[in-house]
Amino acid sequence: MDPSEVNLPPLKDLTIDNITENVNLVNSTNPSPRFKFLLERLVVHLHDYARETRLSHNEWLQAIQFLTSTGQICSDVRQEFILLSDILGLSLLVDSVDHPKPPGSTEGTVLGPFHTHDAEHLENGCIMSYDHNGEPLLVTCTVKDIRGNPIPDVKIDIWETDSSGMYDVQHAGRDKPDGRCILTSDKEGKFWFKGIVPVPYPIPHDGPVGKLLLKLSRHPMRPSHMHFMFEKEGWDKLVTALYLRGDPYETSDAVFGVKESLIVELGQVDKETAGKYPGTHEGMRLLTYDFVLVTEKETAELRDRNSIEALKKLNMTVRIVDGLPVPDVNWRDTQTVSRQG
Amino acid sequence: MDPSEVNLPPLKDLTIDNITENVNLVNSTNPSPRFKFLLERLVVHLHDYARETRLSHNEWLQAIQFLTSTGQICSDVRQEFILLSDILGLSLLVDSVDHPKPPGSTEGTVLGPFHTHDAEHLENGCIMSYDHNGEPLLVTCTVKDIRGNPIPDVKIDIWETDSSGMYDVQHAGRDKPDGRCILTSDKEGKFWFKGIVPVPYPIPHDGPVGKLLLKLSRHPMRPSHMHFMFEKEGWDKLVTALYLRGDPYETSDAVFGVKESLIVELGQVDKETAGKYPGTHEGMRLLTYDFVLVTEKETAELRDRNSIEALKKLNMTVRIVDGLPVPDVNWRDTQTVSRQG
Repeated sequence: MDPSEVNLPPLKDLTIDNITENVNLVNSTNPSPRFKFLLERLVVHLHDYARETRLSHNEWLQAIQFLTSTGQICSDVRQEFILLSDILGLSLLVDSVDHPKPPGSTEGTVLGPFHTHDAEHLENGCIMSYDHNGEPLLVTCTVKDIRGNPIPDVKIDIWETDSSGMYDVQHAGRDKPDGRCILTSDKEGKFWFKGIVPVPYPIPHDGPVGKLLLKLSRHPMRPSHMHFMFEKEGWDKLVTALYLRGDPYETSDAVFGVKESLIVELGQVDKETAGKYPGTHEGMRLLTYDFVLVTEKETAELRDRNSIEALKKLNMTVRIVDGLPVPDVNWRDTQTVSRQG
Repeated sequence: MDPSEVNLPPLKDLTIDNITENVNLVNSTNPSPRFKFLLERLVVHLHDYARETRLSHNEWLQAIQFLTSTGQICSDVRQEFILLSDILGLSLLVDSVDHPKPPGSTEGTVLGPFHTHDAEHLENGCIMSYDHNGEPLLVTCTVKDIRGNPIPDVKIDIWETDSSGMYDVQHAGRDKPDGRCILTSDKEGKFWFKGIVPVPYPIPHDGPVGKLLLKLSRHPMRPSHMHFMFEKEGWDKLVTALYLRGDPYETSDAVFGVKESLIVELGQVDKETAGKYPGTHEGMRLLTYDFVLVTEKETAELRDRNSIEALKKLNMTVRIVDGLPVPDVNWRDTQTVSRQG
């Protein structure tokens, strides 16, 4: 911390025009190229934002207060910053960048703030929702690779709201998980369970994010959906969800998560199916879907290729370190190019 | 909230390349042109940041956790988001944009997170620091306009740390303000008081911002300074500080606040001065400074002119509404231009 150790130009008389460059100089003494890159772009965008909008002190202070209240409403069971990221489209964008999907594989979508780590490992055929007001639903799915081969032993996290549109963690006095479970795909890549028909619901909108939506004249609704997350060593983690065809919010999801390939039409359990799945009956609602996973290796290669191509278009020459881009060789060049943005 | 009322293109299958445009379309239905502009630029920069850095889900999650802990450490006497803005140079930048200073006027600098609203109104000549370990300092100043005319009845907020480098609010069990006061300039534009010689100090660095500085290999020190804030109807509010010449952190301020015009050399009270200011003595340290304020009207005109010129350079045609720019006439043009960034 001895200032004489700091080998930097004197930081004094910083102006609207030179402050970005100087803040980035101070930040550039840290040893990680990736962290340096993340900070350099952050400072450029933050400063460009203030310069382009001519941000006033009052507006800045309102932003400070908004961020503070967003942090303060967070708890073990509420993550308002994820909600904020969701309604600004950032969550979907990050998922798309980090988990590119080759044709034929199942698309990903937003994780949302309601995944928990305490769901019970249950057996195929289980009941995962104890909401008696919900409309019973049989869900039968497969997990396969892109060539159609079943993938056994995949860990599948599944979660949905109850019939009132609330996740278990949104109810006071929750003593155990409900409307969520963890299953494992069998030798044929199959998994199945009994849940309830998903319903549309508002994201929590009694906090700062809700106020922001109101100010933006936007509704807080998400179309009916059920969340799925797939994990197995060697396979790219898939965070996705299935949406119901014809939902009133199908094309106006507050968090931009709907993809055509993830929309399903519910069917009905017929006599034969009812016979195959104990605890079901003819006429019960039925959801079937075939999920397709991609290997980690294939995803990493695609991600690297996409990164290099996308950044080339932005005139940034990068190299990939641990699967993430850092500016190549001449750091100052990158900075100069990016300042034109 | 009836989705049929929403007159927007269907939001489905959003990709890395089209999500920004679509999020901005949804946000553009709110009625305020300024708020629309602020949100449009925010979404563009946020998304461009993720696209340029190829932000990973893990990095995104770390950012979510960082922002959450930054909000959660905030309290009545601690504002970690202002600290974050300070160490990223945003606070100084916003002050420079919002309070442009014509030549000859006193420059502004960062407010910092330690101004309070409970300082006592005291008389000129008061003692404002009761720290007996501090080196006594007589401060004699004037407030004038740009033509050299004194400005009486200016409300002046003054605050500084104690000799240990801590503001009163940083001590547990604070029952009343110390090291801060509010004075009023007299008929000749003069104000004077007895404080202590400022010392360098670290900004609070036991929280998320401190961890960030450490990760950036940056020190948390601020050079010795004393804060001043000037308010009078019709005059542009001046938030500034005076820095001591020769401080070890003079050119490496953690929050980028130092300006050459705000650096002072301390003098010594001579016999004549000691006679004029009761409670002072020959040899006591002396700080003198002449502050120059600008009218609100002059500042507003300068601010408007600067905005239009700066945004013209960015190919944005704007009009000024209530002192702040909004895109002129064709909103879509602005968006197209800005998307090139």
